[in-house]
Amino acid sequence: MPAPAPDHDTSQDHAARAAGIKHALAERFGSDVEVDPALPGLDTLATIAGHRSHRAYADRPIPNDLLRLLCACALSAPSKSDLQQADIVQVADPALRATIADLLPDNPWVREAPVFLVFCGNNRRIRQSSELRGKTFANDHLDAFMNAAVDAGIVLSTFIRAAAAVGVGCCPISAVRNHAATISQLLGLPDWVFPLAGLCVGYPAAPGQISPRLPFDVTVHVDRFDDADVTERIQAYDQRRAGLQPYAKQRYPELYGELAEYGWSEDKARQYSQPERADFGQFIRDKGFRLE
Amino acid sequence: MPAPAPDHDTSQDHAARAAGIKHALAERFGSDVEVDPALPGLDTLATIAGHRSHRAYADRPIPNDLLRLLCACALSAPSKSDLQQADIVQVADPALRATIADLLPDNPWVREAPVFLVFCGNNRRIRQSSELRGKTFANDHLDAFMNAAVDAGIVLSTFIRAAAAVGVGCCPISAVRNHAATISQLLGLPDWVFPLAGLCVGYPAAPGQISPRLPFDVTVHVDRFDDADVTERIQAYDQRRAGLQPYAKQRYPELYGELAEYGWSEDKARQYSQPERADFGQFIRDKGFRLE
Repeated sequence: MPAPAPDHDTSQDHAARAAGIKHALAERFGSDVEVDPALPGLDTLATIAGHRSHRAYADRPIPNDLLRLLCACALSAPSKSDLQQADIVQVADPALRATIADLLPDNPWVREAPVFLVFCGNNRRIRQSSELRGKTFANDHLDAFMNAAVDAGIVLSTFIRAAAAVGVGCCPISAVRNHAATISQLLGLPDWVFPLAGLCVGYPAAPGQISPRLPFDVTVHVDRFDDADVTERIQAYDQRRAGLQPYAKQRYPELYGELAEYGWSEDKARQYSQPERADFGQFIRDKGFRLE
Repeated sequence: MPAPAPDHDTSQDHAARAAGIKHALAERFGSDVEVDPALPGLDTLATIAGHRSHRAYADRPIPNDLLRLLCACALSAPSKSDLQQADIVQVADPALRATIADLLPDNPWVREAPVFLVFCGNNRRIRQSSELRGKTFANDHLDAFMNAAVDAGIVLSTFIRAAAAVGVGCCPISAVRNHAATISQLLGLPDWVFPLAGLCVGYPAAPGQISPRLPFDVTVHVDRFDDADVTERIQAYDQRRAGLQPYAKQRYPELYGELAEYGWSEDKARQYSQPERADFGQFIRDKGFRLE
């Protein structure tokens, strides 16, 4: 009788995987979600349901072939009208990486991660195609800009999903937009190409944490959007979250003091009480977008 | 000796899965990508690399528990600064679905799909949190709008990934934005909440097709964005794609005639030669966004 293969799969394994997914979702949303152990794809669901960001990396390189495979998977994502408006820039040059890391002192993982990528929206290629085919480009509209940004976000998140499947962790860095013009210049991004987010990539040094999320009552609606009781729901979420993962640091204590009870809503209200990337709109307009 | 479990896994299976991923990526990008058969997560990579949209559905319902599980997985996606700016509206009422389907005659699958969802960007909740916590909201900027749109896109694509894992197919419907104000009213979307895309969901009636994509030379860059030879690359892609999947229908033949050689660049140049959703910017501004 041959020894069982190392990943021999039994119905007990299925039940255990389904239970693991249920457990992760209960931690995330604070309510039960049924998981049928007979479903295919439970491994994939487990990495999606158990998603966590990773900012600390093991001293283990990402082989070039693996990075290329993950980029290929990412670029296999759905694309609005097949317009393919996303690009990936790998920051491989250590001096270039250091320059970018210097701009982002609050994100030390930008310096430390084995791989650092920048995901870009690209509304330039479609204009080049218009020129190539002798057509007018008639879409200087907000919709066209948004499509490029969303395409880049979908490619970014698909990269994260592929990475998680092979055991590689990621952390998106939207703070690259704090220095959009400088980083755009450093990476040679031309008109109509803009950085959406950076991404730190590496084998995780620690298991990471599940981020608790707002309950489904707030974010999932049937037939009609309803947020009549959103305040109560947010307050309950603040409390649930504080019990699981209290904030280690309060934002802008010099402005708002230190609170005994500090939850998600307070943290987010503090964050958006100060202008963030007030110059990003101008940067995008300088890139040639008219956003009509 | 017990019968082998149905999903008993061998190293031969690993090699076959790796070969399947290589094959899908070669079809998609027209070049070889190395896939190490020893990698974990090959099943997940296979569904990502082999991604295809599905517009024809089997006569098999999506159980409510499964839909809830897929929504939970989708909402487990990374969210910019943990701001959680995405909502899902399930269109369950048949009359409401029919009204929306009537608006989108070019997308008959909106009527036919077992499930139809609308993914929304939500910049309202953070404003409600600001009010709840007695803070000023100081971010009427393009960046804040874009974050909500991208969050919704990431939740949408994560739903698609979870669905693919369990054998369920999807087709995103950005055409809901052709009627953004009407659909917003039908779903009761308040200020600062906007539809990003619909999503048709169901068990596929057919295997679907892999969309060939631009080669990595065009979309993946090292250290510096480079599109010096983009025209030649696009022309080569047009040819490769025409060989694999010629367009069944040419766009706007009344304006541009019928071409013997009709490729991606011609199709996209024709598409954006006509204004698409020129009123979406006004819709978003009417929702309260200032986009500074």
